[in-house]
Amino acid sequence: MGKWSRRRGAPSLDDVGLDFVAGNGLINRRTLLGGGIAIAGAVGAGATATGAGAGAEPLVAAPWSREFGQITPALQSPSPFEKNVVRALSNPSGEFRNSHARTPHQLINGTVTPNSLHFSINHCGIPNIDPAQHKLVIHGKVRQPLEFTLETLSRYPLVTRMAFVECAGNSAGMFAKEPLQSTAGLLHGLVSNSEWTGVPLSVLLDEAGIDPTAKWLVAEGADAQMLDRSVPVKKAYDDALVAIYQNGEHLMPGNGYPMRLLLPGYQGNMNVKFLRRIKVVDQPAYSYFETKNYSQILPGGKTWRFHFVMEVKSFITHPSFGLNLGEPGLYAISGVAYSGTGRISKVMVSADGGKSWGEAALQGPIHEKAFTRFVMPWRWDGQPAVLQSRAYDDGGNVQPLRADFVAMRGEAANPVTTPLAFPNQHYNSLTSWAVDGKGEIKHVYA
Amino acid sequence: MGKWSRRRGAPSLDDVGLDFVAGNGLINRRTLLGGGIAIAGAVGAGATATGAGAGAEPLVAAPWSREFGQITPALQSPSPFEKNVVRALSNPSGEFRNSHARTPHQLINGTVTPNSLHFSINHCGIPNIDPAQHKLVIHGKVRQPLEFTLETLSRYPLVTRMAFVECAGNSAGMFAKEPLQSTAGLLHGLVSNSEWTGVPLSVLLDEAGIDPTAKWLVAEGADAQMLDRSVPVKKAYDDALVAIYQNGEHLMPGNGYPMRLLLPGYQGNMNVKFLRRIKVVDQPAYSYFETKNYSQILPGGKTWRFHFVMEVKSFITHPSFGLNLGEPGLYAISGVAYSGTGRISKVMVSADGGKSWGEAALQGPIHEKAFTRFVMPWRWDGQPAVLQSRAYDDGGNVQPLRADFVAMRGEAANPVTTPLAFPNQHYNSLTSWAVDGKGEIKHVYA
Repeated sequence: MGKWSRRRGAPSLDDVGLDFVAGNGLINRRTLLGGGIAIAGAVGAGATATGAGAGAEPLVAAPWSREFGQITPALQSPSPFEKNVVRALSNPSGEFRNSHARTPHQLINGTVTPNSLHFSINHCGIPNIDPAQHKLVIHGKVRQPLEFTLETLSRYPLVTRMAFVECAGNSAGMFAKEPLQSTAGLLHGLVSNSEWTGVPLSVLLDEAGIDPTAKWLVAEGADAQMLDRSVPVKKAYDDALVAIYQNGEHLMPGNGYPMRLLLPGYQGNMNVKFLRRIKVVDQPAYSYFETKNYSQILPGGKTWRFHFVMEVKSFITHPSFGLNLGEPGLYAISGVAYSGTGRISKVMVSADGGKSWGEAALQGPIHEKAFTRFVMPWRWDGQPAVLQSRAYDDGGNVQPLRADFVAMRGEAANPVTTPLAFPNQHYNSLTSWAVDGKGEIKHVYA
Repeated sequence: MGKWSRRRGAPSLDDVGLDFVAGNGLINRRTLLGGGIAIAGAVGAGATATGAGAGAEPLVAAPWSREFGQITPALQSPSPFEKNVVRALSNPSGEFRNSHARTPHQLINGTVTPNSLHFSINHCGIPNIDPAQHKLVIHGKVRQPLEFTLETLSRYPLVTRMAFVECAGNSAGMFAKEPLQSTAGLLHGLVSNSEWTGVPLSVLLDEAGIDPTAKWLVAEGADAQMLDRSVPVKKAYDDALVAIYQNGEHLMPGNGYPMRLLLPGYQGNMNVKFLRRIKVVDQPAYSYFETKNYSQILPGGKTWRFHFVMEVKSFITHPSFGLNLGEPGLYAISGVAYSGTGRISKVMVSADGGKSWGEAALQGPIHEKAFTRFVMPWRWDGQPAVLQSRAYDDGGNVQPLRADFVAMRGEAANPVTTPLAFPNQHYNSLTSWAVDGKGEIKHVYA
């Protein structure tokens, strides 16, 4: 590490040494607030030198600085050098079965998932819906059944908010008895985070004149399987939206174009895509997707039925499996945390497999039921380390330790190659990345 | 308008009438909080009926509900029905001159601009930069010149924040003596809003050991024109970032891939794209882009030199030119507000050309130097109306009325067809949309 200096009167790290807050090199998160961290190469200093010496100018112009560049297109897309930043597909040739596209969390950052990379699960392919023909009908126990088009929904006062959507089966591989050697995206890629804009469902129900005794809604999608789920009326009056925009533009086809139900914090499939009707009823429908596919079987043989909320959770995206460290030195540990209950209150990070913990910096403002990015400075000394994160929410919930979680929820021989092996849903325990002496990263249980 | 009902004990709009807060139909913004607003068609009720009568079920299945859908792709993109949602290009065939791509604000919503639609201005085309070859050098009045690659920057504790970027010449057409009949995107499309993630510039300057007497930085890009701008050191220590992610993914090529300067609130071209060096100096460089191109000439012949901050501003996106109203009834007036100084504190909306004003609802949380979406319920009675918005920020700044603004800043015969006609920069006065008796919308000065 070279020298570094400080400005504005803050103490120099050179003088006081790094402010370690936990074992194996975790550094006080406030260090990032104007702190000097030496990572860059010195110009003209040995192995890291470029052609430009200290103070040499003009710098040598790169090839792209010497020619007129490319056309500015109507829709811009990522650099060709980012061609590997894509979703991982479970059914790339579109066979007549379900299909998963997972967000590559290890390759992205911040909190917003770009629309191109938002996860998508489709049981019968993605319908190509004409928004001029599509209608949402609200009927059942209402005074007046109503129908809504994309155009009529657009006339309402719309609400804009951040929210994550997570498949109940996200992280199913974490139930495996042996840790799967997979990227953060393959393990946890069935959760994404967007800014959604839509009409509060309560407004539409009020307009139809919902029967005050009604307790449930049955929401149904317009794709070929017509997935339907029962939703408590109470959730509709809490924070449910009929979403018509995702990160500013109309919904992606794989995320429910032209309209979807958004139930912040509730398991993904309840956020019914291609929403075509909501029936107001007295009791749940006991549909396939709530009585079988998303009724988690517990170790004792009982099931979680109507278990909606996705629990507090976090995982480290940088560094993680597939992103090996090049050399000892200063790094940042970063990842996402979220809770279906409310806001993230803190994220603790360990570099020694849970023996000691330091509090990470959170990138604010903290949104309710949405991703929060956490960051923790870390000096890797070249020795083995085990990186973990643990999230806490403002409802007092804490991400369970793995031993406790497995005792409560069980594990499976191989939940990925045998996807119906239970348990496989609502995993919210820790993820542990082991760094070896060469900087290679493995997935471990710790 | 049909009947509507209320739940949860709130007063029925049917009973008490709409709660108008200003002339020409502006409705209390709190009406959207659970309020019933009748826009939808009644099922089975005359002209708005579908095949499905009230209570009829199952509803008739659309064609896309009867066939297996399309393949889930590695990168998803908008529906073919959204093919018109693109940026407006000033140089679509890539002639050897500058090129503008404007965000179609009238077709999007929320606050995040999707990466595909973020505005982009390129004076010499878009360079295709290999991130493994590109380097950022910090040199000049520093103890140790340093160089940074995308890979080394990725090792720092990164900061994530929302920020708008606006070209100083955005809304140049608003200086025209006669109102241009253009969409919100053509008039105001050189501003966009993203979540940016990057390294605080202060950290990098500290690491290089900046000379405490240095007052300026000169930032230079790696495209063929090597655009360079002088930036006060003070801004670097306030909130400047070297951004490497935009809405979660690496920067778009047209937005500076692989790294750009982000100076929240400062005029767009200072946020130097393709950033290749920062030289620490005693005085500004007086470069072309700060002494000519972006030195606004004032009516008296003086110029604004080093006038950096983009002022408080708002404009209505829905409804707006090109989005005609179909029929009298209930609508929402919505748009974006932002200030280079700080946070939006309120947005007032008028439907009678500024005679009376009502306060719009803001979609929180309110980010500093970023878009805030405002929404105002409105009943259009079929009579002519003039819609305006006026933003206020927490620094006490208010968007100036047009008469005051023109008196101060002047106007031009035609700033679009004669782009060098002055004035043409830092327009932040109101935009007025006139709705006629047929629901057609014109751009007017009011």
